[in-house]
Amino acid sequence: MTAVYYEGGGTFTVGSSEPVPPGPGEVRLDVAYCGVCGTDLHIAHGAMDQRVPTPMVIGHEMSGTVAEVGDGVEGFRPGDAVVVRPLDTREPTPADRGFSHIGRKLKFIGIDSPGALQASWTVPAFTLHRLPPGLDLRLAALAEPLAVACHDVRRGEVAAGETAVVIGGGPIGTLIALVARARGARVLIVEPDETRRGLAADLGIAAYEPDELDVLAETDGVGAEVVFEVSGSAPGILAATKHAAIRGRVVVVAIFPEPKPVALFDLFWKELDVRGARVYEPEDFDAAIELLGATSLGLERIITAVEPLQRVPDIFAELSSGRPAMKILVDCRA
Amino acid sequence: MTAVYYEGGGTFTVGSSEPVPPGPGEVRLDVAYCGVCGTDLHIAHGAMDQRVPTPMVIGHEMSGTVAEVGDGVEGFRPGDAVVVRPLDTREPTPADRGFSHIGRKLKFIGIDSPGALQASWTVPAFTLHRLPPGLDLRLAALAEPLAVACHDVRRGEVAAGETAVVIGGGPIGTLIALVARARGARVLIVEPDETRRGLAADLGIAAYEPDELDVLAETDGVGAEVVFEVSGSAPGILAATKHAAIRGRVVVVAIFPEPKPVALFDLFWKELDVRGARVYEPEDFDAAIELLGATSLGLERIITAVEPLQRVPDIFAELSSGRPAMKILVDCRA
Repeated sequence: MTAVYYEGGGTFTVGSSEPVPPGPGEVRLDVAYCGVCGTDLHIAHGAMDQRVPTPMVIGHEMSGTVAEVGDGVEGFRPGDAVVVRPLDTREPTPADRGFSHIGRKLKFIGIDSPGALQASWTVPAFTLHRLPPGLDLRLAALAEPLAVACHDVRRGEVAAGETAVVIGGGPIGTLIALVARARGARVLIVEPDETRRGLAADLGIAAYEPDELDVLAETDGVGAEVVFEVSGSAPGILAATKHAAIRGRVVVVAIFPEPKPVALFDLFWKELDVRGARVYEPEDFDAAIELLGATSLGLERIITAVEPLQRVPDIFAELSSGRPAMKILVDCRA
Repeated sequence: MTAVYYEGGGTFTVGSSEPVPPGPGEVRLDVAYCGVCGTDLHIAHGAMDQRVPTPMVIGHEMSGTVAEVGDGVEGFRPGDAVVVRPLDTREPTPADRGFSHIGRKLKFIGIDSPGALQASWTVPAFTLHRLPPGLDLRLAALAEPLAVACHDVRRGEVAAGETAVVIGGGPIGTLIALVARARGARVLIVEPDETRRGLAADLGIAAYEPDELDVLAETDGVGAEVVFEVSGSAPGILAATKHAAIRGRVVVVAIFPEPKPVALFDLFWKELDVRGARVYEPEDFDAAIELLGATSLGLERIITAVEPLQRVPDIFAELSSGRPAMKILVDCRA
């Protein structure tokens, strides 16, 4: 069966893999689709070579069906359509304070252990979320990034009638905008790329160039009750606190590898609440799967292309060279 | 009656003032003591000349007694011991979202309008908080900074059994430490000044040099559930997120006039919650007054000296020249 291996140093090879029989508490899946994530691209740039064992299959935004069930697994049987929450939380520590999804010994499946860019994938059964009957498995492959967005929106405590500014209109920013709108918020996206602003507009979300948005003018002088910083840029994090209303919330979604200047005076003056958000908890996957069924969301517009497993090395090369894309899905049914 | 006027350009003069008869809804107070605040020192450096009208009496950390009551004032009569919550919240706006203490048109009494460094002071009755019988009016003059600390600790949601790190052991940092301890937290102060560390130790609070504290070693690897950044320093805000536990809270108490680098990766990785805190709400004054009666707190140790009104110009000059002090009270009964 076809599998794509990351070899380190930014190199991928297309090879084959044997199905791994599920051990106790495990399930073997037939992978249907697997999305390409920003983190995968980061790996493809060699930036995570110290963490990722090689050669190894990566990929973690998948949908599929149960193929085989190991001993002791209850509630799943062959043919069930599922997605995987790729967090291995089996080593909790007291320092986690109950937040196992960001625990000290958390392992990310598809980064720290083999992932989904292969036809057959064996995972612990506790990572599974069942899909509703009839859900398109291409859409279902968006469950993982959509769960990220659901987690971010939950961290931001977005309420109906509030104004949410999303800084950065890439895949995660756009999904956050859709989820925040589904929660009843008015959403304004800030994004420098014209194509991405066009997609936002197609989805019915107001999109602005970074210097174009005057939040106070848009909100009768109040500001945004919640701001999502998804751009990872220095101007983005400065704008985030500026856009926020008195006692507003700012959710830091983007990964900033290095310290960046933050307008701490805004935090003081407006008593802002700036919160980090990372991955998801089980309820975020549940919320994401529920939203996947809401056709009004327009999620299918996020999918740029569906490509075969054999093209994965080329896909990473193309994305590195600036191929415009929101979400590329890989068809893993080989 | 004696009054000290700020003349602008960092200059103070000692003069006299006539008692202002209280209008409707107002109360005239005999001021007993007035503390010198960091903001007053900021004014004395000329840094707020664009905001402070001159000549004007400043000062806002006071205790006193009611001298005269204006029409329509209920619940207070001459002789009542009181403190003033120096926030003029009479112009609420929709943009305040109900948070009148940090409202867009908030005026600070003693900065934007005449203050307490005079023998007689007339203020709106809604600013008053009654003191319990027999409370030392010198201690009572700490109500305002103690209310700041109560507000900060409330913003930090400090709970019994938690570890609180306070970065900066000046007057506000020390008061935060005392309030956090009163709420049942274990408190660790970080402060470069040896004298201030000594005061913390005298108050029974562990104090560390900035590079000396290893929070993980002190907390079985967990980190601090809550961190207060009170130093206003670049290393302080970087250390604040480092010391925080998974899902910990960081309260930004210090005023940072300019953006400073923040380790946003810590916010993401540990899902931190970084909150600004500014002044206080009425319940914080209530909490402060309750704590003033708790002799075990050791608050009297915060008072460095009690000096006459006539010495105010010298006091500011001395503080600007590095006179070591926690809290200097001015005896205004002239």
